[in-house]
Amino acid sequence: MNERRFAPIDSIAVPRFAGPATFMRLPVIEDPALVDIAIFGVPWDGGTTNRPGPRHGPRQVRDMSGMIRRVHGVSKRSPYDLCKVADLGDAPTNPIDLHRSLESIAAFADRIVKAGAVPLAIGGDHLSSLALLRAAARSGPVGMIHFDAHQDMADSYFGGLKYTHGTPFRRAIEEGLLDPRRVVQIGIRGSIYSTDDEQWTASQGIRVIPIEEADALGPDGVAAEARRVAGSGPTYLSFDIDSVDPAFAPGTGTPEVAGLLPREVNAILRGLKDVDLVAADVVEVSPPFDAGGGTALLAANIAFEILCLLAECVALRRAAGR
Amino acid sequence: MNERRFAPIDSIAVPRFAGPATFMRLPVIEDPALVDIAIFGVPWDGGTTNRPGPRHGPRQVRDMSGMIRRVHGVSKRSPYDLCKVADLGDAPTNPIDLHRSLESIAAFADRIVKAGAVPLAIGGDHLSSLALLRAAARSGPVGMIHFDAHQDMADSYFGGLKYTHGTPFRRAIEEGLLDPRRVVQIGIRGSIYSTDDEQWTASQGIRVIPIEEADALGPDGVAAEARRVAGSGPTYLSFDIDSVDPAFAPGTGTPEVAGLLPREVNAILRGLKDVDLVAADVVEVSPPFDAGGGTALLAANIAFEILCLLAECVALRRAAGR
Amino acid sequence: MNERRFAPIDSIAVPRFAGPATFMRLPVIEDPALVDIAIFGVPWDGGTTNRPGPRHGPRQVRDMSGMIRRVHGVSKRSPYDLCKVADLGDAPTNPIDLHRSLESIAAFADRIVKAGAVPLAIGGDHLSSLALLRAAARSGPVGMIHFDAHQDMADSYFGGLKYTHGTPFRRAIEEGLLDPRRVVQIGIRGSIYSTDDEQWTASQGIRVIPIEEADALGPDGVAAEARRVAGSGPTYLSFDIDSVDPAFAPGTGTPEVAGLLPREVNAILRGLKDVDLVAADVVEVSPPFDAGGGTALLAANIAFEILCLLAECVALRRAAGR
Amino acid sequence: MNERRFAPIDSIAVPRFAGPATFMRLPVIEDPALVDIAIFGVPWDGGTTNRPGPRHGPRQVRDMSGMIRRVHGVSKRSPYDLCKVADLGDAPTNPIDLHRSLESIAAFADRIVKAGAVPLAIGGDHLSSLALLRAAARSGPVGMIHFDAHQDMADSYFGGLKYTHGTPFRRAIEEGLLDPRRVVQIGIRGSIYSTDDEQWTASQGIRVIPIEEADALGPDGVAAEARRVAGSGPTYLSFDIDSVDPAFAPGTGTPEVAGLLPREVNAILRGLKDVDLVAADVVEVSPPFDAGGGTALLAANIAFEILCLLAECVALRRAAGR
Amino acid sequence: MNERRFAPIDSIAVPRFAGPATFMRLPVIEDPALVDIAIFGVPWDGGTTNRPGPRHGPRQVRDMSGMIRRVHGVSKRSPYDLCKVADLGDAPTNPIDLHRSLESIAAFADRIVKAGAVPLAIGGDHLSSLALLRAAARSGPVGMIHFDAHQDMADSYFGGLKYTHGTPFRRAIEEGLLDPRRVVQIGIRGSIYSTDDEQWTASQGIRVIPIEEADALGPDGVAAEARRVAGSGPTYLSFDIDSVDPAFAPGTGTPEVAGLLPREVNAILRGLKDVDLVAADVVEVSPPFDAGGGTALLAANIAFEILCLLAECVALRRAAGR
Amino acid sequence: MNERRFAPIDSIAVPRFAGPATFMRLPVIEDPALVDIAIFGVPWDGGTTNRPGPRHGPRQVRDMSGMIRRVHGVSKRSPYDLCKVADLGDAPTNPIDLHRSLESIAAFADRIVKAGAVPLAIGGDHLSSLALLRAAARSGPVGMIHFDAHQDMADSYFGGLKYTHGTPFRRAIEEGLLDPRRVVQIGIRGSIYSTDDEQWTASQGIRVIPIEEADALGPDGVAAEARRVAGSGPTYLSFDIDSVDPAFAPGTGTPEVAGLLPREVNAILRGLKDVDLVAADVVEVSPPFDAGGGTALLAANIAFEILCLLAECVALRRAAGR
Repeated sequence: MNERRFAPIDSIAVPRFAGPATFMRLPVIEDPALVDIAIFGVPWDGGTTNRPGPRHGPRQVRDMSGMIRRVHGVSKRSPYDLCKVADLGDAPTNPIDLHRSLESIAAFADRIVKAGAVPLAIGGDHLSSLALLRAAARSGPVGMIHFDAHQDMADSYFGGLKYTHGTPFRRAIEEGLLDPRRVVQIGIRGSIYSTDDEQWTASQGIRVIPIEEADALGPDGVAAEARRVAGSGPTYLSFDIDSVDPAFAPGTGTPEVAGLLPREVNAILRGLKDVDLVAADVVEVSPPFDAGGGTALLAANIAFEILCLLAECVALRRAAGR
Repeated sequence: MNERRFAPIDSIAVPRFAGPATFMRLPVIEDPALVDIAIFGVPWDGGTTNRPGPRHGPRQVRDMSGMIRRVHGVSKRSPYDLCKVADLGDAPTNPIDLHRSLESIAAFADRIVKAGAVPLAIGGDHLSSLALLRAAARSGPVGMIHFDAHQDMADSYFGGLKYTHGTPFRRAIEEGLLDPRRVVQIGIRGSIYSTDDEQWTASQGIRVIPIEEADALGPDGVAAEARRVAGSGPTYLSFDIDSVDPAFAPGTGTPEVAGLLPREVNAILRGLKDVDLVAADVVEVSPPFDAGGGTALLAANIAFEILCLLAECVALRRAAGR
Repeated sequence: MNERRFAPIDSIAVPRFAGPATFMRLPVIEDPALVDIAIFGVPWDGGTTNRPGPRHGPRQVRDMSGMIRRVHGVSKRSPYDLCKVADLGDAPTNPIDLHRSLESIAAFADRIVKAGAVPLAIGGDHLSSLALLRAAARSGPVGMIHFDAHQDMADSYFGGLKYTHGTPFRRAIEEGLLDPRRVVQIGIRGSIYSTDDEQWTASQGIRVIPIEEADALGPDGVAAEARRVAGSGPTYLSFDIDSVDPAFAPGTGTPEVAGLLPREVNAILRGLKDVDLVAADVVEVSPPFDAGGGTALLAANIAFEILCLLAECVALRRAAGR
Repeated sequence: MNERRFAPIDSIAVPRFAGPATFMRLPVIEDPALVDIAIFGVPWDGGTTNRPGPRHGPRQVRDMSGMIRRVHGVSKRSPYDLCKVADLGDAPTNPIDLHRSLESIAAFADRIVKAGAVPLAIGGDHLSSLALLRAAARSGPVGMIHFDAHQDMADSYFGGLKYTHGTPFRRAIEEGLLDPRRVVQIGIRGSIYSTDDEQWTASQGIRVIPIEEADALGPDGVAAEARRVAGSGPTYLSFDIDSVDPAFAPGTGTPEVAGLLPREVNAILRGLKDVDLVAADVVEVSPPFDAGGGTALLAANIAFEILCLLAECVALRRAAGR
Repeated sequence: MNERRFAPIDSIAVPRFAGPATFMRLPVIEDPALVDIAIFGVPWDGGTTNRPGPRHGPRQVRDMSGMIRRVHGVSKRSPYDLCKVADLGDAPTNPIDLHRSLESIAAFADRIVKAGAVPLAIGGDHLSSLALLRAAARSGPVGMIHFDAHQDMADSYFGGLKYTHGTPFRRAIEEGLLDPRRVVQIGIRGSIYSTDDEQWTASQGIRVIPIEEADALGPDGVAAEARRVAGSGPTYLSFDIDSVDPAFAPGTGTPEVAGLLPREVNAILRGLKDVDLVAADVVEVSPPFDAGGGTALLAANIAFEILCLLAECVALRRAAGR
Repeated sequence: MNERRFAPIDSIAVPRFAGPATFMRLPVIEDPALVDIAIFGVPWDGGTTNRPGPRHGPRQVRDMSGMIRRVHGVSKRSPYDLCKVADLGDAPTNPIDLHRSLESIAAFADRIVKAGAVPLAIGGDHLSSLALLRAAARSGPVGMIHFDAHQDMADSYFGGLKYTHGTPFRRAIEEGLLDPRRVVQIGIRGSIYSTDDEQWTASQGIRVIPIEEADALGPDGVAAEARRVAGSGPTYLSFDIDSVDPAFAPGTGTPEVAGLLPREVNAILRGLKDVDLVAADVVEVSPPFDAGGGTALLAANIAFEILCLLAECVALRRAAGR
């Protein structure tokens, strides 16, 4: 098989602004069985309760991801040397029908998981993660490392609606997709409706690291705590771009001031090396609120950091014969 | 009764940028029985199939409507001298639940109609108009003067979905809310999916004036034709801001180049004086795509032109003892 | 009395983008005697020597303040449970007449103070603070905790003009409104015209914490020093948004690079709990230079932090029978 | 004398983006006695009653005027071949003191007029024109060709203030600077506070061409009527950029939809060849509301059209020995 | 062969914002022998003398072209029913090496022409057209219908440089690629460096229709004149987006005010039905100056109009057995 | 000689927005022999491999530099009291011809160095630095303190091109302009093409401080290390604005997330007091990607910090009789 097929176009040969935009300048491949890691978009914001726009996220992240080169600057390793990666296109979504979308996203991700590939989804709003978890947890509940300004653990919105981008992880726990004692939430902050959600979360045994504690622990401390909570079991990584301070990531629907700094994000992510990641997402990038594209650029960089983590996991599992 | 209560704040006394923003700087009134014309917002884009954002429309139009003064520059008449007008707030909407929103918008408008007031809605996407027509046509089918780049007469989207911002008027005809022989569509243009919708529309007897014919007729000719089609019966006026060229109205979800010019819009609207308007809307203003606010400013001006038309109708009907 | 009347609209019931925008989604109330804390706008930039725009500040902060929920995320307390808060509208201002504006702002604030309510003003340029201090210091000179990139202690501008947004606190000291030994300035930085203003400030006994010292002290150290300087007497809190780094707050007239970070601001403000605050302002938000609205969002969050401080002060004073 | 000194930098030799920006890439000259036409800025918006910003107008017009080449595309003549033109810098202004600014602007313009040069001012808000007229009319009342969306003939604002950007020409008539029977206003439109100003204007014998009449007359008809009204006496040309439709000129404080199109403006201006122009201005360009710079680019082009008219007048008067 | 392969993704089934962006949502095909019309990008601005950016044009036009549906709104015909169309990717370019880029663009286009397909290039700056003409004119000089604000007929820039975006057509004539008597230039306007280029152009027998004449002729008159000049021989169509007024197309490097309106452009293009078009381009779209994407949307619409013309030509030639 | 001639216009007398924009509001002087420090622009981006725009950098930095006052806020010293500084205009550049530009920039800088003045260049892309080094190193190789996200040490791009903004310092070392053992690179980060450039750099003995190490060392540690590496010999300071995090400096062509913070930059620069600086640049400011002007404002502040360093060096050398 031709490994070159799964390498990005070389920006030192072909300028970055040339050609149709794909994730990381990778080829578009339809069959997940051909790849180890499947990057795909979830162009959907059907669960958004406030400012819309994440339906446009995948396309803008594709555009800005052309800025990423093939080798990680600190590890000096390239994910493309470790495994086969491609752009699988977008999951089918429907801007009008919430439940049909949840199902079609889950089915798309499920096909990837069944084919033995690791899904890396680019959202889309955070309700997407519920659909993705349905695929990622098909063999049993998973742990989760969750970067976010919000817990997304509400019970319902607007008079009883159970499925919004503020409720995915409560549903995931109810559906048995997540093991709450292996869930850690990083960067939580901002004003809240009430303390009800926090109390429910605490009752489930979830570990919350609010921004104030993250500041005190430092990135290494946060990463250590995340590793401790996630343990050695299969773990999902969900990255809501609003975990980052809105000066760095204005293009999102529910910005909360005083968030994580990108240097902290990099340090925390790089500290997750030993976690057994089985799937991941980067969500809530909203291009209509991101005039300069800086949020998408940051999201593309975070996706690359996560891709490097996933590639190491794939290599490790392969080495372990799993 | 204190007529002053229903007048805008005077911008020659209090600067236009002062105070909370309401439509036309009018007071916020809850009870529709107190007014003749009820301006209200429909902060909703649940029917949007492409770029979202009209849920933010009412607020931005409120902001820019502070630029409008109290007297019409050509007629030298003020709607506030003819009748009582207020900002009735926003219809209840739900960004997650399409059908509940359609019902709550219709109920809100119905309360206005039942109270004897004329509704002037600021959208919101075009599916809102279906809800509004359910209230406006409670005494029987109405005619419609419809400004738009698109016919919005599709049967369904995305595998059979019947309720989107591309289908409202097909539904309205099916529900018996519109008399198709008294419907005229102005400014239609752009590429199309197929000729099916046009054929259905033609079969209903609807009069379509594409932009090319509007150009040839001139604004006076268009207005004359619109008056002829609408006739003397009760008529709804629906103004989709994307009827206007996107250089003048970029802030909308489905822009089509080569549209109506604002001077033409003004001339056509002013030519509708004798039509018996019973309700109206201005829809599809999408602030996330309207950085400078120019679309909202134009929408506010168009809303004022329509308000002047409605006020004359109210005065005429009052004079006629209706 | 109906306490509910002074609560924000619940964003989990009514979407945040719905309805006319008021501060924190609070009701608009005219009579200050009905509230404990009166939030109001000062739509004015008559003292601005460089880039204008703060006249539009109150409206944009109203818009973005809809993002704030009712309970503080760290204290888990809500100001609305402690006391009655409302949007009092805007102080009367005049974009053409500086002195008449100073008088009308002072009179508006005075009416609030006389009614026993605590003023929380959203500016407006920094000259507004002089007018506000005239009301706040009606019973004698007050201390001040002042966040700013600039000292605003100049004697005059442009050939002897004594009243600009660069001079308010020199005037306030001359008028006996401030006790200079109880004044602390936080975040001062950037190039200066000369060392004259610094020397005058030092001669008055004012404590200045430039950004470099703030960096060295850390937020807790800054807060401790501010508490020490302010002491137990009545204290005014003035927050110029340009104290924050312009990456987080570009929408201001005189940005100075290398400023405070929002996480530092939050930590310092939360460290001011024991100060006896009697009035406060958040000023210099300039929407024309704030395309994405991020500055107004930050200002709304800072206003909420301050509101929480003020509410605790009101509760304490009430408990103490003052 | 070295005529080359008064020619723009050649953009076919030195790229347009190079060097400090001056009007039309002309040299900056201090002494008006050295030039025939003095272009200068009036960085001031002290008379602005609504959205501020024209104080930044001259600088942005300087920047965009680098796009203009030396020869007129239709007449094939260059103003720089007809007379000496330079950038005289900016009139002294004061953002805090309205009356001192009016005086210093008038004095600056007066020095130019006394030196025998023709002033071409780039504003600044429209109150600047009052100061400029005081210089231009030093030998007696002048006629005026006035492009604007608004008449700017109000008596007062905000409780009796006589000097705002809505009142300059009422003051100019009262001061005997304008001969009202030789004044024509082109492009007037939009909602109005009342009909009082129109009635006063009519009583003075001023000729108003609202946008609707301009549309009917066509550009040639408008130009003919302007020439007829202005007659053969000395005439001032005042161009408020808000006379143009806001799609073409969004960067202004009081935009009115449905305005003049640039092609119409060019045709009208080119039709004014025989008018004896003695001074001119282009005002109300507000860069904070003009993100892309399109308004300043249009203003620079209009200034060039006017410069060509003035150069022909200078040449004619020189030929006539005046 | 599966004709469906060359149809756009159906936006009524898959939302327009989904999937990697390609021209008109067409498949990306490498082999030109498989298609009748090859749309491709030229991501290059190496010839730009002023504001850069067209190197980013193809990608943004791909993004916005997702808004175009499959059937023309006036003719009711679809180019995809007439012939096979695909996105051929981008021509190889080099942002540092002008001459190597000219060669690689020409070679890329030549491969298309040799394969029997019709090239439709999306630029890129106007120097690209020289490379494209080298391919299009391989069987002999062609005629040209050229929309532009500028003649692009200069001899040299910056001290003798012969290859810039201001010189392509002078070079093309010198190289024998164009038959100057069959060249028409539409929309020329704005200030000029000198009259030299015009004189040279006139001496070649080129027909120039400045904007003022276009206004007088009307779109039908312009189209008739273009047809007359082009005659029945093979003809190239070059569309510089700056021919359009900058209110409609701000995203370009050398905007000239007072240009063509999109409705005029549509009418002129639709009037070119009988011209034997053999290749075409749409150039000078500069995304860095096109914040809202409106210029790219317009360019995509114009590309679709041209695609429809080309498809009719292909069908005609096929019917004629050519 | 009149020292006042070389002082900025006083912003407390003349508003900052008044007059043509020059660097720091300094006079424009042609003869470098009249000044001690020559600030000039390099409006050029001929070496840019990705997003263009730095050709517009000097003009926007001139505009924003009007915000800088004359005295440094921490040292309380003014560079204008130490030596004569002026705006020398722009180096001649050519957007089409790379090598001619390199030569003309070098010649311009050489004239300054020969006249005994210190060059402070405002770019322009980073290839400019190669030209500047040719002048600065005319008496022998110099050391360099280099702030950047990228090493700019590549051998070639796009098939062997040796001169791009990614290669200047490799060329400078090859040309003997830099002493690699006296070169330190600060802020390096982000993904890389391969490890080849790093290996070459290491083989030359260059000291690299990646962002992760800069974070660990702290600003004082970084400054100490930079001083150690640079030693006591003549040293060049090159500041690529992309060394700073893109939230603070979005206006650049190759943004890399997670960069230096402005407070760190200030602290590092202020720690370089004892280095013998002989020339400096601030490069890669790209206005088309800097909507709000914040990048240019930051660049102007950094240029002022560097100017203060250079002025102290000039004073020291003068005191030492050098």
